[in-house]
Amino acid sequence: MARYGAQFGPDITFMGVDACDWADAGSYSDADVVILGAPFDGGTSHRPGTRFGPQYIRQTDYNPPDGSRPSLAMRVDALRDLRVYDAGDVEMFSGDAERSVRDLQTAVHAVASTGAIPLILGGDHTVAWPDAAGVAQHVGAGRVSMIHFDAHADTGDVEHGSLVGHGQPMRRLIESGAVRGDRFLQIGLRGYWPPPEILSWMARQRMRSYEMTEIGARGLDECLTEASGIAMDECDGVFLSVDIDVCDPGHAPGTGTPEPGGLTARQLLDSVRRIAYELPVLGVDVVEVSPPYDHAEITSYLANRVVLEALTGIARRRKDARDGTTWDPRQPLLDGR
Amino acid sequence: MARYGAQFGPDITFMGVDACDWADAGSYSDADVVILGAPFDGGTSHRPGTRFGPQYIRQTDYNPPDGSRPSLAMRVDALRDLRVYDAGDVEMFSGDAERSVRDLQTAVHAVASTGAIPLILGGDHTVAWPDAAGVAQHVGAGRVSMIHFDAHADTGDVEHGSLVGHGQPMRRLIESGAVRGDRFLQIGLRGYWPPPEILSWMARQRMRSYEMTEIGARGLDECLTEASGIAMDECDGVFLSVDIDVCDPGHAPGTGTPEPGGLTARQLLDSVRRIAYELPVLGVDVVEVSPPYDHAEITSYLANRVVLEALTGIARRRKDARDGTTWDPRQPLLDGR
Amino acid sequence: MARYGAQFGPDITFMGVDACDWADAGSYSDADVVILGAPFDGGTSHRPGTRFGPQYIRQTDYNPPDGSRPSLAMRVDALRDLRVYDAGDVEMFSGDAERSVRDLQTAVHAVASTGAIPLILGGDHTVAWPDAAGVAQHVGAGRVSMIHFDAHADTGDVEHGSLVGHGQPMRRLIESGAVRGDRFLQIGLRGYWPPPEILSWMARQRMRSYEMTEIGARGLDECLTEASGIAMDECDGVFLSVDIDVCDPGHAPGTGTPEPGGLTARQLLDSVRRIAYELPVLGVDVVEVSPPYDHAEITSYLANRVVLEALTGIARRRKDARDGTTWDPRQPLLDGR
Amino acid sequence: MARYGAQFGPDITFMGVDACDWADAGSYSDADVVILGAPFDGGTSHRPGTRFGPQYIRQTDYNPPDGSRPSLAMRVDALRDLRVYDAGDVEMFSGDAERSVRDLQTAVHAVASTGAIPLILGGDHTVAWPDAAGVAQHVGAGRVSMIHFDAHADTGDVEHGSLVGHGQPMRRLIESGAVRGDRFLQIGLRGYWPPPEILSWMARQRMRSYEMTEIGARGLDECLTEASGIAMDECDGVFLSVDIDVCDPGHAPGTGTPEPGGLTARQLLDSVRRIAYELPVLGVDVVEVSPPYDHAEITSYLANRVVLEALTGIARRRKDARDGTTWDPRQPLLDGR
Amino acid sequence: MARYGAQFGPDITFMGVDACDWADAGSYSDADVVILGAPFDGGTSHRPGTRFGPQYIRQTDYNPPDGSRPSLAMRVDALRDLRVYDAGDVEMFSGDAERSVRDLQTAVHAVASTGAIPLILGGDHTVAWPDAAGVAQHVGAGRVSMIHFDAHADTGDVEHGSLVGHGQPMRRLIESGAVRGDRFLQIGLRGYWPPPEILSWMARQRMRSYEMTEIGARGLDECLTEASGIAMDECDGVFLSVDIDVCDPGHAPGTGTPEPGGLTARQLLDSVRRIAYELPVLGVDVVEVSPPYDHAEITSYLANRVVLEALTGIARRRKDARDGTTWDPRQPLLDGR
Amino acid sequence: MARYGAQFGPDITFMGVDACDWADAGSYSDADVVILGAPFDGGTSHRPGTRFGPQYIRQTDYNPPDGSRPSLAMRVDALRDLRVYDAGDVEMFSGDAERSVRDLQTAVHAVASTGAIPLILGGDHTVAWPDAAGVAQHVGAGRVSMIHFDAHADTGDVEHGSLVGHGQPMRRLIESGAVRGDRFLQIGLRGYWPPPEILSWMARQRMRSYEMTEIGARGLDECLTEASGIAMDECDGVFLSVDIDVCDPGHAPGTGTPEPGGLTARQLLDSVRRIAYELPVLGVDVVEVSPPYDHAEITSYLANRVVLEALTGIARRRKDARDGTTWDPRQPLLDGR
Repeated sequence: MARYGAQFGPDITFMGVDACDWADAGSYSDADVVILGAPFDGGTSHRPGTRFGPQYIRQTDYNPPDGSRPSLAMRVDALRDLRVYDAGDVEMFSGDAERSVRDLQTAVHAVASTGAIPLILGGDHTVAWPDAAGVAQHVGAGRVSMIHFDAHADTGDVEHGSLVGHGQPMRRLIESGAVRGDRFLQIGLRGYWPPPEILSWMARQRMRSYEMTEIGARGLDECLTEASGIAMDECDGVFLSVDIDVCDPGHAPGTGTPEPGGLTARQLLDSVRRIAYELPVLGVDVVEVSPPYDHAEITSYLANRVVLEALTGIARRRKDARDGTTWDPRQPLLDGR
Repeated sequence: MARYGAQFGPDITFMGVDACDWADAGSYSDADVVILGAPFDGGTSHRPGTRFGPQYIRQTDYNPPDGSRPSLAMRVDALRDLRVYDAGDVEMFSGDAERSVRDLQTAVHAVASTGAIPLILGGDHTVAWPDAAGVAQHVGAGRVSMIHFDAHADTGDVEHGSLVGHGQPMRRLIESGAVRGDRFLQIGLRGYWPPPEILSWMARQRMRSYEMTEIGARGLDECLTEASGIAMDECDGVFLSVDIDVCDPGHAPGTGTPEPGGLTARQLLDSVRRIAYELPVLGVDVVEVSPPYDHAEITSYLANRVVLEALTGIARRRKDARDGTTWDPRQPLLDGR
Repeated sequence: MARYGAQFGPDITFMGVDACDWADAGSYSDADVVILGAPFDGGTSHRPGTRFGPQYIRQTDYNPPDGSRPSLAMRVDALRDLRVYDAGDVEMFSGDAERSVRDLQTAVHAVASTGAIPLILGGDHTVAWPDAAGVAQHVGAGRVSMIHFDAHADTGDVEHGSLVGHGQPMRRLIESGAVRGDRFLQIGLRGYWPPPEILSWMARQRMRSYEMTEIGARGLDECLTEASGIAMDECDGVFLSVDIDVCDPGHAPGTGTPEPGGLTARQLLDSVRRIAYELPVLGVDVVEVSPPYDHAEITSYLANRVVLEALTGIARRRKDARDGTTWDPRQPLLDGR
Repeated sequence: MARYGAQFGPDITFMGVDACDWADAGSYSDADVVILGAPFDGGTSHRPGTRFGPQYIRQTDYNPPDGSRPSLAMRVDALRDLRVYDAGDVEMFSGDAERSVRDLQTAVHAVASTGAIPLILGGDHTVAWPDAAGVAQHVGAGRVSMIHFDAHADTGDVEHGSLVGHGQPMRRLIESGAVRGDRFLQIGLRGYWPPPEILSWMARQRMRSYEMTEIGARGLDECLTEASGIAMDECDGVFLSVDIDVCDPGHAPGTGTPEPGGLTARQLLDSVRRIAYELPVLGVDVVEVSPPYDHAEITSYLANRVVLEALTGIARRRKDARDGTTWDPRQPLLDGR
Repeated sequence: MARYGAQFGPDITFMGVDACDWADAGSYSDADVVILGAPFDGGTSHRPGTRFGPQYIRQTDYNPPDGSRPSLAMRVDALRDLRVYDAGDVEMFSGDAERSVRDLQTAVHAVASTGAIPLILGGDHTVAWPDAAGVAQHVGAGRVSMIHFDAHADTGDVEHGSLVGHGQPMRRLIESGAVRGDRFLQIGLRGYWPPPEILSWMARQRMRSYEMTEIGARGLDECLTEASGIAMDECDGVFLSVDIDVCDPGHAPGTGTPEPGGLTARQLLDSVRRIAYELPVLGVDVVEVSPPYDHAEITSYLANRVVLEALTGIARRRKDARDGTTWDPRQPLLDGR
Repeated sequence: MARYGAQFGPDITFMGVDACDWADAGSYSDADVVILGAPFDGGTSHRPGTRFGPQYIRQTDYNPPDGSRPSLAMRVDALRDLRVYDAGDVEMFSGDAERSVRDLQTAVHAVASTGAIPLILGGDHTVAWPDAAGVAQHVGAGRVSMIHFDAHADTGDVEHGSLVGHGQPMRRLIESGAVRGDRFLQIGLRGYWPPPEILSWMARQRMRSYEMTEIGARGLDECLTEASGIAMDECDGVFLSVDIDVCDPGHAPGTGTPEPGGLTARQLLDSVRRIAYELPVLGVDVVEVSPPYDHAEITSYLANRVVLEALTGIARRRKDARDGTTWDPRQPLLDGR
């Protein structure tokens, strides 16, 4: 099967990494990470536009697309130290959510089956269902935990007559057994949704959701430490799902359902890096970037950096495992250079 | 069945006309025109956002929403001289195009069955299929001709694996027999789509498509006169479908697939008014207004005025029929006031 | 007297709560809170646009306008647990500031007289004069203290030849005796206004103003605790006036006189919630939201949430008083659901 | 009396012409034209922002502010061939429309009294009342006719409880006798305002209003010729009032009450130039430019050019009178250079 | 020498045509047209941003980048009927205008030497000097005439101490003898630049410049016919240089020095197509597209279509020469399909 | 030599301070600070637009340009307590970086030679080379240390074939000996540039660069204290160079190379104020403000305040030295007024 390329715009790869075809495992046999675009916004309940997320996240940077991004902070070059491929987009017709999620799961599972980490660029959060399910299909139901950054719980049931949508993926994942409810960690929730009956369902699943008030009172670091502990209990690794709206709209205006009072960009980048460094990551998605609502591409920039920080954490984790070293966030930039 | 109201935002009506419930014919038994919102953008091939079209077209004005719009040019007040209701939106989940068009057609047909003119606010152009089909379902297959303002022919076949989408409604209408190919008039086409094989299909259907080059060479008025003649041959009336991208992007930037070189806003308003005045209109839709890509709401303003000019033409046509008068575009504004 | 409705756009209510007519007390006899729109920007010294504040604050949300907003953090649904009405706008002609403030005060006083809490959606900050004066007219001069979030002191005297304007309401309130100078708490001031002579006047009134430098050095929580203590000394309750420009322009660009270096959105929401929870609130206004200068509606979203957090705090305060419970910000979201 | 300068921003002059003080006739004793800024938007019924019109119209250009603008088309340099001064702004508090118009009229009259042509930069259209009245105060009631480019008639009576506002100046001018109703020429009207009763009032005043439909049917040139004839019958000269919304929103998005279907920028510039060349102009205003709603400053650019074309027409008219020459629009640019 | 690719963003080609390396003639030996990007804005006198022109003109479309663009109007597919390559960008450091234009001319000349038509995507208009000079270097000094669409004459001498800049290329071309002054045709000039002394210089060169007033008075078609006649007198072909600001800012806001009163997009597209069809084109450039000042990419869309219309005209011209056919603009779209 | 004034727009001064001519020392003989505009963006590697930085930084405020800015926090009025002049812009042609930096250095040196502090408004960061070199030229090579707020190290070598550009000034300063590498303090670095070989070069120079991770781990205050200590070791004073992109893009979107995860506006303002208060400042620049990418002017507002806080710190430092007082950030605003 031929590489589909890009559903919108030219066939480019994330920051210039090598292209591959997800359906041809031979085209990425040495991959550590395979990027997939999920240009789908048919599941959003409000502002659309995330179909252009993959194109913008791949392309938005002032540095050249040269397949190299040496991290100042972690002293690895994720795009070189890891073997990262970009498989292009999965064709996803926004007018057919059911078929789209089915096709995406096939692709994610194909990638995961090779042992590579699938990293999906959304699209709206609908895609988290096939993303994490595709990983679980490979590692086994309930063997992957979820760390989920978001302003919203995304645990709705039927909405607009459909089981598929950007407010429901987390429920589908738990109901299907792909991810255990008691290994489901949510960071950054706030606002006025979901209503009590859905919260009750969540409580019954024994999910652990950190609302911003608790995060403010206890500190983000402490919450992350606690969440990491839960995530690794009886699981092989984590799926990291980052909804860009976990950040405050001031830092991420280009999104569909902005909820004031969120994390700063700095907090999100630090958190993503830390999780990817400390825990074995089995899959990642970065979703809900809506370029038509963005300004000066700041939300696309942020999402691009979320991807890079996840990759950087993974790369440094592997390097430290290999070299027996440890990362020290307090080390001055130029020490030992 | 209860009125659904608005899928996005508060339950308002077009410029303050009375509300009704399309499923309850008694709620609009005296209607001349019933407005329906079709907040769907799951069928668009490029920029989404038209789901917010109904909300913006209903609301965008500097005049108050008082259910009155006396036309300076035509000396009728369409919202008062006609009995216009707004039935709110049909719920359309953008992630399920097939169900959405089915549900919309049900609503349009229900309205048409009462003898009222359905006027649909899109949404992307996918909705033209259920819009005109719903009318044909009432007046009989092939009894309604189509006058279609657009930069694009919208006669594609399968796209992204689907028969439903904003590039294909006109093919579906002809294939289904709802509208005769040789009573299908297209105004304003231009650019580089569709490819020759689709043009051949169109030619075989004996469609009549006025590309901008012909319009420029012959004059818009002459083309409209010719088109009107064809439209009324063996048909009971016309369905008027206005894709806002028939206008140049300078006049209508807020749309999904802008094609430079289109009509001016003035030309479109004059054309819509003229058709609605000269021909018996059986249905109308105004589509492809994408507020996230708009600036200073100028595209929403234009679409609002397209609706008003269509209603104004209908109102004046009925008045003239009643009073035996004729409209004179050269008459000074204040003459005979 | 008939409800005026909306000065701009359709007659909608805040998030779908019930409508009432402020001039007809019977229409809201069971009200806990009555919302009033004050669509006035004739008093602004720089960028206008706040006249559209009421329309945007009422309407901007991705959740449906269903009259329900269950707070994740506080476990109350302010729009249901309280009886909240929206009285529509007071007609305010921006070209006549004096008449406008007089008419607004009449409406605020009418609401306050029924025992309901008036919550006013500005409009520029000019409206704080009639807002707090209308409350004081009911509870008695000097019986209501003021907690005022703002980048600016708004204690100017005559400007552009007028005593009325958005830089002067706080002076008017103190001079008139409506609010005691020594019960006037200001949070978030910064920048280069007002000049020393006005600061001297403020000092003579024994106002207590927390500039951002002091807040940074001492911590916002400590400042709020101190301010709350002052506010409740010999007063029956507080008027909470929130100028959205207390937040940094990054979080609230859509305002008339943005001053860099402000609070984060998170800080403002937490502070508003806390005050509404801890102190007896007698009136609220949320002002200076200028939609033409906003991007992706993030400032309107923030203001909408400021209103909701104020209501949520009030609702939880009443619930705790009723049930003998206490709110714990550290409680995990799903505990006890 | 000292020059007030600019109400907003630095004290600059239109394209760098010399500054003067309107209250000190000696500071512009040799003036042909004196520019006045009227930074007032308290009278607008919808979107504000025109208070920044004077600042933007004065400043928006890519050519340097060097007090020179040689017209390619008319072969005069209006800023040099005429003696043009800029008197800065009249202080106008938007919250006090009555005082503001009174103060503006004083300034306009002062300028007109010296024999100079006052050219006012709005501001919303409220200012046309004091603008033309100030001229009539000098030349005599009924001695100045009005040529008024606008989408709207601006002949409303009381609105929002006020006689002063941007929808009413033309009524005030006629009622006060400053301008004769039968010497009132309106070009470019369209849409759905005013209602029939106001149109009747207009007809009774024997105004002559060219709606866009008549302009389209007869041609703009023919309408202008006819209008010019009426304007000069028993009058000494014309006041030229240009509301930028006479242009289509595609050409002038930055305005308060955009009405689709207007003139092109080219048509407006040609018309203004022609009137200023063919008729004795006694005063000019250019109004309703709202920078917050503009994009890439295209509306400010257009308004700047409207001012320049008016000045250019005046300059060429005087030159031809002096030299006995005639302007030929068909002459190639480089002929005779 | 290796292909440089793109100076900004990923290495893509215009609408997906094949890539080549201008320095390796073998990589495009069968080329009819070779596209070159000139991402330079160091020569602009006002708003920069045109460095992103090549990236946006290549990429902006809703049709896929599939190397095919069948023209509805002309019934050729320029990207398939011609052999079109895209050589990527010439590296141009905006901070070094002299080196940049030298390097660009080398590339243009290299392409022209192979017999292919160079088509350059600007960049600011500075690039017209190396563009046309590179062609003249191949066909001989004075053997290529210039048809120049622009609001500005671009015939300045020294500006900001430099001979190189976007206001001066036409002077350099004439002074150097590359293009004859009396074979220099300018369409669309307007406004207030250049001053009389430069116009005198232009007149002495016997340039022929059509200002918008002459175009309005005589008609664009007649002017183009006259210009075409001059262009082909004693010359081998034409260089077509299109500054997007020849269009009105309403149609092309995304540019550096917008001048109100320009052509419509429709007029420009028709003119470019006509010239490319009627005359032997030896080179083309499309310049002054500044994406940061654009809205909804409408200016990039327009520039993309200008390129396509030029290619389409060339393709149809060659086809007609081959087949002995003639293009009829009045032919209905579906006739003979 | 005559004052050049403004390269773009009218000749205004920063907030209305007095004008001077840098080439005429007599015009500012009593100056404490002289402001220079450096309207140059020819050195930027990505988004341009900073040429308009000086114009916007000078002009953007809601307070009047009255030459007075009394700081609430520091109780000095920097524009009055210091003698501040604005020398206008140095003419800098963006297409000739080498000449431009040479000319700027001449101006900066001229100012520094008089003993006044030069404060330069960029422009892109290219200007830091001539800015600090011009100061060092006066105080002696190596006698001025550098405190550099930036997301980027700006220590590149040759880029695009040039030694001059916005990514390289810091290298040029160290290589030339103007500033000692071991007295070069960088605050706020982050992201993926520069690559290891440049970091090695930096380490060899013994630069001290605080990446955001270290700042997050240790706290900004501690890092600043440490940096200040280094800066004053064997140096006479500091040059303070503030690249606005040190702030997070949410706070400063209007810049050329935004890097997510930066400082808040509050942090930057506090830091600048503190450094200017605690250390002897010999020169300042504020760079990389790109108005075309800004929204609602929030980045220009921030840069304006950075300038004011630097001036305010300087003024208070001098006052305290004079009066023997000390600034207490915890002092309530109204204490002792």
